[in-house]
Amino acid sequence: MTLETLSESRSFGGTQGVYRHKSQATGTDMTFAVFMPEVSAHARVPVLWFLSGLTCTHENAMTKAGAQQWCAEAGIAMVFPDTSPRGDEVADDTAYDLGKGAGFYVDATQDPWKPHFQMWQYIVHELPELVSDNLAIDRDRMGITGHSMGGHGALTIAMTHPDRYKSVSAFAPIANPSESEWGQKQLSAYLGDERATWRAHDATILMAERGYPGDVLIDQGTADQFLDKLKPEALAHAMMSRRQPGQFRMQPDYDHSYFFVQTFMPDHVFWHAERLI
Amino acid sequence: MTLETLSESRSFGGTQGVYRHKSQATGTDMTFAVFMPEVSAHARVPVLWFLSGLTCTHENAMTKAGAQQWCAEAGIAMVFPDTSPRGDEVADDTAYDLGKGAGFYVDATQDPWKPHFQMWQYIVHELPELVSDNLAIDRDRMGITGHSMGGHGALTIAMTHPDRYKSVSAFAPIANPSESEWGQKQLSAYLGDERATWRAHDATILMAERGYPGDVLIDQGTADQFLDKLKPEALAHAMMSRRQPGQFRMQPDYDHSYFFVQTFMPDHVFWHAERLI
Repeated sequence: MTLETLSESRSFGGTQGVYRHKSQATGTDMTFAVFMPEVSAHARVPVLWFLSGLTCTHENAMTKAGAQQWCAEAGIAMVFPDTSPRGDEVADDTAYDLGKGAGFYVDATQDPWKPHFQMWQYIVHELPELVSDNLAIDRDRMGITGHSMGGHGALTIAMTHPDRYKSVSAFAPIANPSESEWGQKQLSAYLGDERATWRAHDATILMAERGYPGDVLIDQGTADQFLDKLKPEALAHAMMSRRQPGQFRMQPDYDHSYFFVQTFMPDHVFWHAERLI
Repeated sequence: MTLETLSESRSFGGTQGVYRHKSQATGTDMTFAVFMPEVSAHARVPVLWFLSGLTCTHENAMTKAGAQQWCAEAGIAMVFPDTSPRGDEVADDTAYDLGKGAGFYVDATQDPWKPHFQMWQYIVHELPELVSDNLAIDRDRMGITGHSMGGHGALTIAMTHPDRYKSVSAFAPIANPSESEWGQKQLSAYLGDERATWRAHDATILMAERGYPGDVLIDQGTADQFLDKLKPEALAHAMMSRRQPGQFRMQPDYDHSYFFVQTFMPDHVFWHAERLI
């Protein structure tokens, strides 16, 4: 598979690149960003996947999460995928939280979404292969994190494929989408009204049923504007009921913005680095 | 003068705020951002002014420069002003580098710019007073820096008012606008064709004629897309000819982006903090 380089910028001694490719999974061109630390010139490095939230492209976290410096210091790569397929041929909705920018990290089974909204397949299978074919990342040392809808993606993917993702964390994840305005609408649109199919995409349910073999780090701000939709209490309850190793941190006064993400990014990067190196 | 709070977010233990006010200088509403470190709850703190480049608002550096963490650690505030007046009544040009988003940190004397493009007056006089009236900053401990057009602003302002700005640095400044495509057009439009009036707004000329009483830090990337317009060689020549104390650093492979700014932001924040605290 070929990769088109859209830009490469020196950053903290490494390289922040933006690339485009034709995706088999989505049937569209897809754009993603990767930070490669300087040490990757000499050896394959661990990689941390950062899944972004509603309305985001590959660009938001790349520019606003402040991750590069910590990845450079830790010697790990970070990949910033897009959150949905894009293009004129791709179905969309006028709402910000359905369709483009809102793929929810599922493989849609319902029309009009089914032809292109195959983001689970894209993130879990296609993109890791593409990135490791083209850049010096080590697919045996992958961790995953994300923010909001991306935190939902990171948790559900890691709990489903703990063999592939050796570490997991999340920033203000959509924690219980089956019971939330951020979830019911999208899971219904993409997967249909049969709620049994939603269970594989609800971090709280997966936590209750499976958990994760390693420890899990979750950060959530107390001043988050979307607490009622995120439902951290449901995930924390499932996590602690299970005695799942890990930390669920309620950070006083932090909201849902990248200022929150940026503040706790070093903790997350080093959390993953310690488990991947 | 009253300040309208547009948002306040917790960030690295401090507060990232965005505020709006009616400006006397520009005759318009103006929006700016301020990061206040946690320690400002107890005492007035030094403040570093960050002037942004062409096309930017208060928001670009606030979200992409990664400054908050270092300001939190150093215990200093950072102000991110807008780069021009805004609004339907404000003159503009179809080019990205003239009019809105391109105030060039001068007080325009020519129509149609004169009524609102009074950015020097706004940055040097009005905004420091407003900020110190409303937030716990110490006007006797101010430093100034900026990126590109903002680096030009920081250097020309600091060399003109070294009594007010106790420290100065710049990221990839427009260093010799009188001799550049980025400068001749704008200085001509805002100040008129009499080149003698431009001299007060050319860092290379000010460096040759006045210098700065403290030491000066300049960072410039070798892969900068705009090197021919920035003319770092002119400023470096003036600086070293004068034996101006300071550092002019050519950073291998870095371009003009915020990835460059972000990489060297800690050096700049601590440079200022050491000279202000």
